[in-house]
Amino acid sequence: MAEFDLINQYFKPPCSARNDVLLGIGDDCALLSVPPDKALAVSTDTLISGVHFPHGTMPEDIGYKALAVNLSDLAAMGAEPAWASLAISLPTADKRWVEQFMQGFNPLAAQYNLVLVGGDTTQGVLSITVNIYGFVNEKKALKRSNASAGDLIFITGTLGDAGAGLDAVLNAERYNIPVDDTLRHCINRLNRPEPRIRAGLLLTQLSQIAAIDISDGLLVDLKHICEASQTGAIIHLDKIPLSDTLAGHYQKRPGGQQPDWQAITCAGDDYELCFSCPEYQVDEMNKVFEAQDISLTQIGKMTSSNKIECFDKAGIRQNLPLTGYTHFTHEKQ
Amino acid sequence: MAEFDLINQYFKPPCSARNDVLLGIGDDCALLSVPPDKALAVSTDTLISGVHFPHGTMPEDIGYKALAVNLSDLAAMGAEPAWASLAISLPTADKRWVEQFMQGFNPLAAQYNLVLVGGDTTQGVLSITVNIYGFVNEKKALKRSNASAGDLIFITGTLGDAGAGLDAVLNAERYNIPVDDTLRHCINRLNRPEPRIRAGLLLTQLSQIAAIDISDGLLVDLKHICEASQTGAIIHLDKIPLSDTLAGHYQKRPGGQQPDWQAITCAGDDYELCFSCPEYQVDEMNKVFEAQDISLTQIGKMTSSNKIECFDKAGIRQNLPLTGYTHFTHEKQ
Repeated sequence: MAEFDLINQYFKPPCSARNDVLLGIGDDCALLSVPPDKALAVSTDTLISGVHFPHGTMPEDIGYKALAVNLSDLAAMGAEPAWASLAISLPTADKRWVEQFMQGFNPLAAQYNLVLVGGDTTQGVLSITVNIYGFVNEKKALKRSNASAGDLIFITGTLGDAGAGLDAVLNAERYNIPVDDTLRHCINRLNRPEPRIRAGLLLTQLSQIAAIDISDGLLVDLKHICEASQTGAIIHLDKIPLSDTLAGHYQKRPGGQQPDWQAITCAGDDYELCFSCPEYQVDEMNKVFEAQDISLTQIGKMTSSNKIECFDKAGIRQNLPLTGYTHFTHEKQ
Repeated sequence: MAEFDLINQYFKPPCSARNDVLLGIGDDCALLSVPPDKALAVSTDTLISGVHFPHGTMPEDIGYKALAVNLSDLAAMGAEPAWASLAISLPTADKRWVEQFMQGFNPLAAQYNLVLVGGDTTQGVLSITVNIYGFVNEKKALKRSNASAGDLIFITGTLGDAGAGLDAVLNAERYNIPVDDTLRHCINRLNRPEPRIRAGLLLTQLSQIAAIDISDGLLVDLKHICEASQTGAIIHLDKIPLSDTLAGHYQKRPGGQQPDWQAITCAGDDYELCFSCPEYQVDEMNKVFEAQDISLTQIGKMTSSNKIECFDKAGIRQNLPLTGYTHFTHEKQ
């Protein structure tokens, strides 16, 4: 264990301290101060090599992503990031690996004024568990149960890049299919998702917003909102925004095909927010988001049914699976 | 992932809710309320099969221990338990295993009025990461840096049982050495350590207590207090209390040998508290602990040197390694 203990030195946060860290790394517990008028928002996510990121992903990218996916959970609740703790299992006490990992983790932490308050390294198969802590006014939190029939459904940014990126990585590995610039853009979105913290915080200025981050796939994640709110949903597939890169990729394919809606709606890892907003607030919301230069797109509407229905441009109902990205199947194909 | 998602149903806490859980398992984050006059104490510990518990340990015992070792970190800070989150990696989506795991976890959680606020199951090599949360008055917290030269050193309970238990398990496995009643007692202490929460809370009634839980071994853990407080320490080995069972075990060995002080001071997993107390408070402390029927033993004194020195009954200095239980070496022997 001694070697592994040494590694913990890489977790000591740089100078960027926070006043609310009363006692940081190095005792039995960290001691933290939560603002009295705020709820503490906490979330845990584990990333396992070959399951949540392809084998061979660079340590910097793993460090970035391990934090980004946890920040994304705070974003989906409208919480302001504060602290994180980090448990890493590593096959060997590889200091260089941890250094590189932290080179991905630390800049993202600094960007959100987040301080690491606990770190634990153990010997094992490569896996990372991050626990993240933030603050939110409980009454303003973007709970999944906040949606009502008639609310409009929005997503931030664009969907599908990360899924195409994952396919690209796996195809390059298995079939030696080269990675072009389009796919490089998609792989970058897979490895370096932008947590939508700013968007989440803006949404807490409104009322009755239900939000989730798209980690497993638009439809399966939206289903969580529908279940918690006891609503259904209608999605207009052609309104789902794609990046220019991904749209171009589909156009270049033989026959200038339509986007692969199944791949796009069932792919995870984009970490955009999907949320519902009562109609009376939509104008106000659009103004706020435009002023902050964050793209929003309305893609559907909550309904009083108990199903999620998807329609194409011609208004024809498409039966898309309400399942998400299945990590294991993917790696075992 | 769907199968693994299903497993999360086992994490839903039973009826024993807490008012300070504003939103429990089932959203992007849990929302929690920390008392305004308290600091939030948090700690993370990962347990890996074959490293932190022997392969073949029963799931109930793993569930108990995963929570107990984290509670022990709260105890060593003097914090009152409140919540925990749980990330489990499992080779297969084995519901029976998770049920059994929770049969060890839940009763211990209930005993301390602790509520599970997050659960995540992923596919991978068996490992468990628990994040635990408690409350403590920051000024009363049992920080490792609180010790001064001249303070007396105490431990709760007895030491060495868990280390002997681990040896028994490994010897039974490798050399087919049978487990007798003595060793069964020791194995039980290995698998079912009692977190010293009550002792930790009592110690917060005093001032300037530095505490640590003995997870890696008395000497290496005491060294953490010495380093944080810039003190040294003297330990009187013959004062270290052993259980009747372990003392009997040593007496039965050929030649009625002395206890194996190296094994006892370097073994981990007992999860007793080791702490320093300024001399003027010792009478008061002893009264409080006697009234609560918690055994305490003075085993040494903090010094102004920079070393930890151990003496036997005859006053002869013994050179014992200041290292703890090295998990990997142990398993690889």
